[in-house]
Amino acid sequence: MRAGVIMGNGKLNIAIVGSSGYTGGELMRILINHPDALVTVITSEKSAGHPITSVFPHLAGLTALVCEPLDPETVAKKADFVFLALPHVTAQEAAFRFHKLGKKVVDLSADYRLADPALYEKWYEHCHQYPELLKTAVYGLPELHREKIKKASLVANPGCYPTGAILGIAPLLNKSMIDPQSIIIDSKSGVSGAGRSPSLAHHYPEVNEGFMAYKVGTHRHTPEIEQELSSLAATQITLSFTPHLVPMNRGILTTIYAKVATQTDTGLLHSLYREFYKNEPFVRVLPAGYLPNVRNVRGSNFCDIGIIADPRTGRSVVVTAIDNLVKGASGQAVQNMNLMMGFEETSGLKFAGLFP
Amino acid sequence: MRAGVIMGNGKLNIAIVGSSGYTGGELMRILINHPDALVTVITSEKSAGHPITSVFPHLAGLTALVCEPLDPETVAKKADFVFLALPHVTAQEAAFRFHKLGKKVVDLSADYRLADPALYEKWYEHCHQYPELLKTAVYGLPELHREKIKKASLVANPGCYPTGAILGIAPLLNKSMIDPQSIIIDSKSGVSGAGRSPSLAHHYPEVNEGFMAYKVGTHRHTPEIEQELSSLAATQITLSFTPHLVPMNRGILTTIYAKVATQTDTGLLHSLYREFYKNEPFVRVLPAGYLPNVRNVRGSNFCDIGIIADPRTGRSVVVTAIDNLVKGASGQAVQNMNLMMGFEETSGLKFAGLFP
Amino acid sequence: MRAGVIMGNGKLNIAIVGSSGYTGGELMRILINHPDALVTVITSEKSAGHPITSVFPHLAGLTALVCEPLDPETVAKKADFVFLALPHVTAQEAAFRFHKLGKKVVDLSADYRLADPALYEKWYEHCHQYPELLKTAVYGLPELHREKIKKASLVANPGCYPTGAILGIAPLLNKSMIDPQSIIIDSKSGVSGAGRSPSLAHHYPEVNEGFMAYKVGTHRHTPEIEQELSSLAATQITLSFTPHLVPMNRGILTTIYAKVATQTDTGLLHSLYREFYKNEPFVRVLPAGYLPNVRNVRGSNFCDIGIIADPRTGRSVVVTAIDNLVKGASGQAVQNMNLMMGFEETSGLKFAGLFP
Amino acid sequence: MRAGVIMGNGKLNIAIVGSSGYTGGELMRILINHPDALVTVITSEKSAGHPITSVFPHLAGLTALVCEPLDPETVAKKADFVFLALPHVTAQEAAFRFHKLGKKVVDLSADYRLADPALYEKWYEHCHQYPELLKTAVYGLPELHREKIKKASLVANPGCYPTGAILGIAPLLNKSMIDPQSIIIDSKSGVSGAGRSPSLAHHYPEVNEGFMAYKVGTHRHTPEIEQELSSLAATQITLSFTPHLVPMNRGILTTIYAKVATQTDTGLLHSLYREFYKNEPFVRVLPAGYLPNVRNVRGSNFCDIGIIADPRTGRSVVVTAIDNLVKGASGQAVQNMNLMMGFEETSGLKFAGLFP
Repeated sequence: MRAGVIMGNGKLNIAIVGSSGYTGGELMRILINHPDALVTVITSEKSAGHPITSVFPHLAGLTALVCEPLDPETVAKKADFVFLALPHVTAQEAAFRFHKLGKKVVDLSADYRLADPALYEKWYEHCHQYPELLKTAVYGLPELHREKIKKASLVANPGCYPTGAILGIAPLLNKSMIDPQSIIIDSKSGVSGAGRSPSLAHHYPEVNEGFMAYKVGTHRHTPEIEQELSSLAATQITLSFTPHLVPMNRGILTTIYAKVATQTDTGLLHSLYREFYKNEPFVRVLPAGYLPNVRNVRGSNFCDIGIIADPRTGRSVVVTAIDNLVKGASGQAVQNMNLMMGFEETSGLKFAGLFP
Repeated sequence: MRAGVIMGNGKLNIAIVGSSGYTGGELMRILINHPDALVTVITSEKSAGHPITSVFPHLAGLTALVCEPLDPETVAKKADFVFLALPHVTAQEAAFRFHKLGKKVVDLSADYRLADPALYEKWYEHCHQYPELLKTAVYGLPELHREKIKKASLVANPGCYPTGAILGIAPLLNKSMIDPQSIIIDSKSGVSGAGRSPSLAHHYPEVNEGFMAYKVGTHRHTPEIEQELSSLAATQITLSFTPHLVPMNRGILTTIYAKVATQTDTGLLHSLYREFYKNEPFVRVLPAGYLPNVRNVRGSNFCDIGIIADPRTGRSVVVTAIDNLVKGASGQAVQNMNLMMGFEETSGLKFAGLFP
Repeated sequence: MRAGVIMGNGKLNIAIVGSSGYTGGELMRILINHPDALVTVITSEKSAGHPITSVFPHLAGLTALVCEPLDPETVAKKADFVFLALPHVTAQEAAFRFHKLGKKVVDLSADYRLADPALYEKWYEHCHQYPELLKTAVYGLPELHREKIKKASLVANPGCYPTGAILGIAPLLNKSMIDPQSIIIDSKSGVSGAGRSPSLAHHYPEVNEGFMAYKVGTHRHTPEIEQELSSLAATQITLSFTPHLVPMNRGILTTIYAKVATQTDTGLLHSLYREFYKNEPFVRVLPAGYLPNVRNVRGSNFCDIGIIADPRTGRSVVVTAIDNLVKGASGQAVQNMNLMMGFEETSGLKFAGLFP
Repeated sequence: MRAGVIMGNGKLNIAIVGSSGYTGGELMRILINHPDALVTVITSEKSAGHPITSVFPHLAGLTALVCEPLDPETVAKKADFVFLALPHVTAQEAAFRFHKLGKKVVDLSADYRLADPALYEKWYEHCHQYPELLKTAVYGLPELHREKIKKASLVANPGCYPTGAILGIAPLLNKSMIDPQSIIIDSKSGVSGAGRSPSLAHHYPEVNEGFMAYKVGTHRHTPEIEQELSSLAATQITLSFTPHLVPMNRGILTTIYAKVATQTDTGLLHSLYREFYKNEPFVRVLPAGYLPNVRNVRGSNFCDIGIIADPRTGRSVVVTAIDNLVKGASGQAVQNMNLMMGFEETSGLKFAGLFP
């Protein structure tokens, strides 16, 4: 059907590279029911030789895959599409090698998100080793870059915070409704966003019944948000971004403040958002006056958005909710794969979240 | 395909009666992706006239159904299969009326679970109004009553606690491995098991960071467990059952103690369980020595089981984990529907749980 | 010792009016160990005739008080100092009556916080019945109004959100370091802030694993914050205030953004805060670069503050943490009582929070 | 006042050895307000040179102590009473050395709890190095061993699970009301019981919304419970003990089943418990029919007990609740210190728990 693609079982063969973290597990969960794709190889250095169900017992009975160490040549023989769920820096070379082997790649790390390698070096403190490949990478936010994603062979899957932030502010910037230098993004994330490696900071009794801000003004997702918003506004935007840690497993709620450029009201802003996202299968603009809750997107690929105009202050307040592991990571990665492969965009992703 | 069944859109048309509680919402979530069934009507007295997405915003974008008040005749015109997610007592008559209208029914309430109406009256403090219909009802635990369920027109879906308890102890009783009068069942449930009606006992700050036992020796699920176990053991069993409330949304972990009748060890017991459940699609007997965790079944229809023989005390300890809203309620209800309708038993239920 | 005050057991006799809510319980918890005060009467309409330990079993063994219905004359015979933990509107008259009876009062409701009765009417949708008494009330934030509180007979205890917000921004406004119209306050509160009355919105499974914003731009604590900050800045301030609900029992974290008027850095701002609060027993300005976490103030009367200057955006970001039931309510009420009665300000309040 | 005791500031000088874990922090929290004792030295290898408030920011403003490495001679010059909050094995020698230096010691580890060194070796897989000192150690459960504790120089502070289990079953055994071989103890603990060292098993997203049993039949607290109960019953008892992990910070609820030897009812059992514990300041036998909840003892030194006779099964069901870090560790340690030093037993411990 799709020329040049090896199809096993009539489905696209998939590799998940770095499968023992939460995004790897979530890719497995989603792809188990994907009608067009089949995971045929998974890699994990530390769990090599062990079934993935020893790492993720919730998948028992649904997959018999065994983790193997990452060897791109070996992986390439078994799969035609690669999801990289590796730490940044490590992902750089893996993407390069799979790309050379002719595989399409969605990289869930930050390595190919920032178009400017100097910006990457500044924020990630590593020199980018593959600036030529970087030029070909597409930022994988379908709502903004759908057509480019369809043609891309390397897609940089957006960060979790940027997904909720960019989707929240894009319509206002697109219509020049706000002062682009007035944007303040206050985000609150569940703990799975910090990954699966144990640390004191994420030890249960330290997190539970706690709440804190962290990396104020210095979080690495900041340049990614600024890059996309600057492009939308056609002007260089500098913004405040503050992440917070919420005692819950999943979800990011993002509250975005901006000075409204012209007089407006909630009804007008709401119409603008409804129009902007009218064809988007995974953006739900809530009824006017309603505000999102992360519980309603838990486990799903939806981004819920509420928008309020505050006439007292002349500011708009946008609130968005996503599941950081789904629309903020693995679900969006599958959405990107669907686009890159010409599948139905919603294929394998039309499931409701889990509530309660 | 199935004679005499009205099929809309080539699928079985489904009614969910009492759709605004957690089990109703969970039926919706599961059935949205069922390949053979389509929900065509939902009822809710208090939300009549409102879209189900106003009650369950997590379903937005996936269904346009509007709640209506319960009128069996009207409902019967739109659906051929009825799930009753009503409170007990109320469900009695609804089951009777849909049965008279020729509809197959899965009743999620307790009204048709106890074969002996006197027992029902004793524990539920209401006289059973439909003892004749009660005689035809089948207790809907597929692992024990699969063949009867296939032929039933009214299935009493098991309680959440009984599901985890009975599946945990059945193999031991079946093989006469334990003293049937020595059974102690210590269960721990997430808060969704208490339903969606607000009360001080389930107000967030009262539950969170708390843990308690309740209804010690008097919980209404006790006779249901005893009925099924007595039948298995072919002797009248009286057992201790203690429910506890866990500060989490979903899941029941059940720890079951019994005096082992003959000398044994963990390996032998494990083999027994593996054999007993070898063909069961939704029972996962964990590797020997492993114990279940409710997090691994969250959102899925699996029941995970671990079994330990304790040579010091001469007791076996079985631990089971289910999601109370899925295998303990709505998932099992769909499994029963699949059996009653001749669908693949796992149809619409082969999804992984949500972890983390 | 203190002339004109009836002292039982050598201690000040205290009434808690409205003792069955969380702030009432917290007053009891704190006052049990107060060296200078003794609770001699507690009122609760719905628990009248019942021991307070039936309402708050955690107090068993520490008090034998029995709730009684509110009759000011009767109460006044048993106590010389009154804490009102009543809903707003209801508190108005109670304050008036106890005041007439010559009692000193700390009112934990909103009824005497807004100096302008028109503002009260606008935000609370009730006409203030006691404007004359209102004129005498002092806003009970000791860090700003200590001397007035000492002389007051009626103190309006600040709201929980305003306490964290005002303490966070006061030093910057006091030194004219920020643009007073640029203030954005993004607050996150535990669920006890919503009180003890059950509701679907605060039913455990609805809140747990959820996170949401609410009352964006319309929360009633907004005018209270603006009143105090406007007074500090000597100019009318309008600000954005957004509350959020965090799945935890206690605590408010407040993140405050403002445009810095002159060039500055984190070190300078930190010094400013250290200086401003150097004599405050309950404000802990964290070491430079550190940020607060609500877990560190849980159960204590401290307000922790962190301050960051973000040179990229020209904004300051202040983060404060309080326990909403202690510094945000009952602890601060006791601090006010201490001041009003000439006790040591920290009397009964020098305890550490509970971690973890 | 107490001959031979060096008193600084008119108070007993205290050392906390191993202060960076949760029990160390809890000792600090409690002792800060102790009228008769003053912590003068704290040790922590990994935090040596750092203020304790860098390890426990919730103590900021209440102590200026700096951690030092453990050197018994140095510590002994500054303190006359030592709390050992070290891992087992490590504690053995520390206890020995402080004992030789003439200091009274409460050891919070397991090293001196089991009177039989062979039992220690069997369960802890280390040979006990100080069997002579072990003979002098007293098991520090005041409700059972008050008089011995008063005279002891080395007290082995009970484990958290044993505290709740032994207090729950002691009255029944004491009165020979139950079959001593029929005891089943099903315990549920908050996560702080697992200590402060990060691990995947206690990483927030792995624990939250999860529930599991662990170490079924093999937990090291088993022999400790059996030792004390056997002594009470004057017969060797073997029992089933199953610990579970609850997604909450603090608290242990223990559900205890036993076959009642003679016919009885809840009222009789309740009277028995009330009588047995009538003089105990920290045991609260709840009103007949009431059951405890860990939320009511959180942060306090109370043990709450409920007792039910189940006539259907001929079993008694006892439920106890403690805070594992207070009555289950540091609070009980202070209670033991009070007894050993001749202080009021409740000194520094008469505070209410934190609810909600």
